[in-house]
Amino acid sequence: MSENQHLKRQQRIQALLGKAGLQAVALNPGPDLTYFSGLEFHLMERPVLLILPGDGPSVLILPELESAKVDDLPYPIRPFFFNEDPGTWVGIFQAALQEAGLSSGKLGLIPRRLRVLELNYLQSAAPDLEFESAQDLISQMRMIKDGSELAKMGEAVRIAECALTGILSSLKPGQTEKEVAARLVGRLLAQGSDPALPFFPIVSFGENSANPHASPGERVLKEGDLVLIDWGAAYQRYCSDITRVFALGDLHPELDKIALFVAEANTAGREAAKPGVPASAVDRAVRQVISEAGYGDYFTHRTGHGLGGEAHEEPYISEFDQTILKPGMTFTIEPGIYLPGRGGVRIEDDVLITEDGCRSLTELSRELGQLLPDDSMI
Amino acid sequence: MSENQHLKRQQRIQALLGKAGLQAVALNPGPDLTYFSGLEFHLMERPVLLILPGDGPSVLILPELESAKVDDLPYPIRPFFFNEDPGTWVGIFQAALQEAGLSSGKLGLIPRRLRVLELNYLQSAAPDLEFESAQDLISQMRMIKDGSELAKMGEAVRIAECALTGILSSLKPGQTEKEVAARLVGRLLAQGSDPALPFFPIVSFGENSANPHASPGERVLKEGDLVLIDWGAAYQRYCSDITRVFALGDLHPELDKIALFVAEANTAGREAAKPGVPASAVDRAVRQVISEAGYGDYFTHRTGHGLGGEAHEEPYISEFDQTILKPGMTFTIEPGIYLPGRGGVRIEDDVLITEDGCRSLTELSRELGQLLPDDSMI
Repeated sequence: MSENQHLKRQQRIQALLGKAGLQAVALNPGPDLTYFSGLEFHLMERPVLLILPGDGPSVLILPELESAKVDDLPYPIRPFFFNEDPGTWVGIFQAALQEAGLSSGKLGLIPRRLRVLELNYLQSAAPDLEFESAQDLISQMRMIKDGSELAKMGEAVRIAECALTGILSSLKPGQTEKEVAARLVGRLLAQGSDPALPFFPIVSFGENSANPHASPGERVLKEGDLVLIDWGAAYQRYCSDITRVFALGDLHPELDKIALFVAEANTAGREAAKPGVPASAVDRAVRQVISEAGYGDYFTHRTGHGLGGEAHEEPYISEFDQTILKPGMTFTIEPGIYLPGRGGVRIEDDVLITEDGCRSLTELSRELGQLLPDDSMI
Repeated sequence: MSENQHLKRQQRIQALLGKAGLQAVALNPGPDLTYFSGLEFHLMERPVLLILPGDGPSVLILPELESAKVDDLPYPIRPFFFNEDPGTWVGIFQAALQEAGLSSGKLGLIPRRLRVLELNYLQSAAPDLEFESAQDLISQMRMIKDGSELAKMGEAVRIAECALTGILSSLKPGQTEKEVAARLVGRLLAQGSDPALPFFPIVSFGENSANPHASPGERVLKEGDLVLIDWGAAYQRYCSDITRVFALGDLHPELDKIALFVAEANTAGREAAKPGVPASAVDRAVRQVISEAGYGDYFTHRTGHGLGGEAHEEPYISEFDQTILKPGMTFTIEPGIYLPGRGGVRIEDDVLITEDGCRSLTELSRELGQLLPDDSMI
């Protein structure tokens, strides 16, 4: 099943190349290469490249050392192996481009992924080749998730939710943000997350929660603290990304208040997200709730980002993204209000656009959770 | 102290630019940017760029959202902020390049790091600019570690060694490779590793150890298994990278034998590593021991790689790297013998070239360690 999936994706993009004016697309290691081939390579000092030509099997340039990766592929591929001597690599690129029928015309590439390293080899091997971004072409495909992708994202959400639930009862005054984050990582891996987490969890206590990009540090949990946790798992390379907030004891009343407004903004975003509207409309709906509550200046980032094979991908839920939402798109909705020196609240869900609206993949309560102070020791 | 360090590094490269025929060097997020500025940015869809010009303060192009990062820098910098509207970014690049005095001439960049994304903005903003690799220039500097870098690497080694020691006694038959790897990660973080580990540990049991690039899976530990663990920590972004092997009960005699040969090859490598010899000489010394033992065909990778701000960096300890070793260089020595279907042994140390030889930063015994079978339950 999943074998045919990669071949089908290759055939789909082949069918779209002509209309886009491209002879082929060239991908270096990363989520795009994996999406079309099922293969994974590290992004290293070596120039691995997958070329999807207008017709014929895909061409793959890879180190001899990793030749086992193409031994039993369930689709045809034309591999070109290079050894450890970089002096021979331009020749390998020449042979591979020739095999793919690429000597002139336009080759599509992904500017935010392809490096000057690979570009230089391509230019040396085929000086008449022109290059153009294939970002839109590929995101159009990747934005719409199929059933197997959604199943993986659902599992990534389940792993993340179970991991968090597993550590909440052990959160106690005196622990540092770093300790809690390390324990959460251990749980994520134990629950079955891929080793490569989509990102290291943010665990921030008290005033630190007012920094949306905080790194877990030595701040110790105290009674009266707001606790913000932003974490995710990966399952077969598909990501989840969730944020929830908790209180240890009684919070400053303004923090309770902003937690309600943020939950309301999150709901407004999920209600606005449906097929046919632009991504920016979701951002607007969310921002309106927070502005009307009087906290517009304290919501300092965009509403969300696409989620899937990458922790950040298209579409971006910002005022500048006019992508029309379609069934199968998945992204985060994560409004926040950050009060410098006091604390911040963010409530982040992963949603899927359905035929007539949106469905949240994340199911944990969006209310401010209450943590128990340390009176339950055995 | 460490403040002046970044300024000093900027001044050092400024002094070298003229001789290299470069007007400036441009760096995107990653270890090079951090080395010269102490700053860290995620590599994302936004084009962050640090420009080190021939004279005058450095120029930094960054998102408005991250402006706090340059608030209290201990050296002068000329920041150019962009907002969330990509339509305005070429203009920002133009202003920044103008401020850096860059309209023509050669701009140095790092091909294996800089993306087509940043290159396109540079080309649009200054069409007459030419580009050239500054890889050698920058690795010449980065290869020679100073005292503060060595202190961080030493700490990364200490964290990794303590973390491994902490889990060894709990390794028991019936556990999976994945479980052991997850526990090791938890220990690495608890011992004080940076959240961003240099790589996810390889834990491989029995026949799986014959694959040098194995990922931890569901293979269960059994009596008679060889256990290979390849792991590392990061401390303030400096890496360690170690491999050791263990036996649970009695191994096939050939595995005991290759463990001795690999340890001997490791020693030969450390003895060959000294100032004035090329990196390739270390590879040759290691390979000779294994070839003479009759296992040349089963040592299928290079002897090692540079280690520091990156888990793989210059120099590469391979037959193709003629870099002359100098005091202050740090790299791995990691011979291996891999017997398909049966098992593999690799013994990896992190070494520092000194004035008259080399010193291993890693101190764990290189002998095949004996694990206790599960007869010690309480």
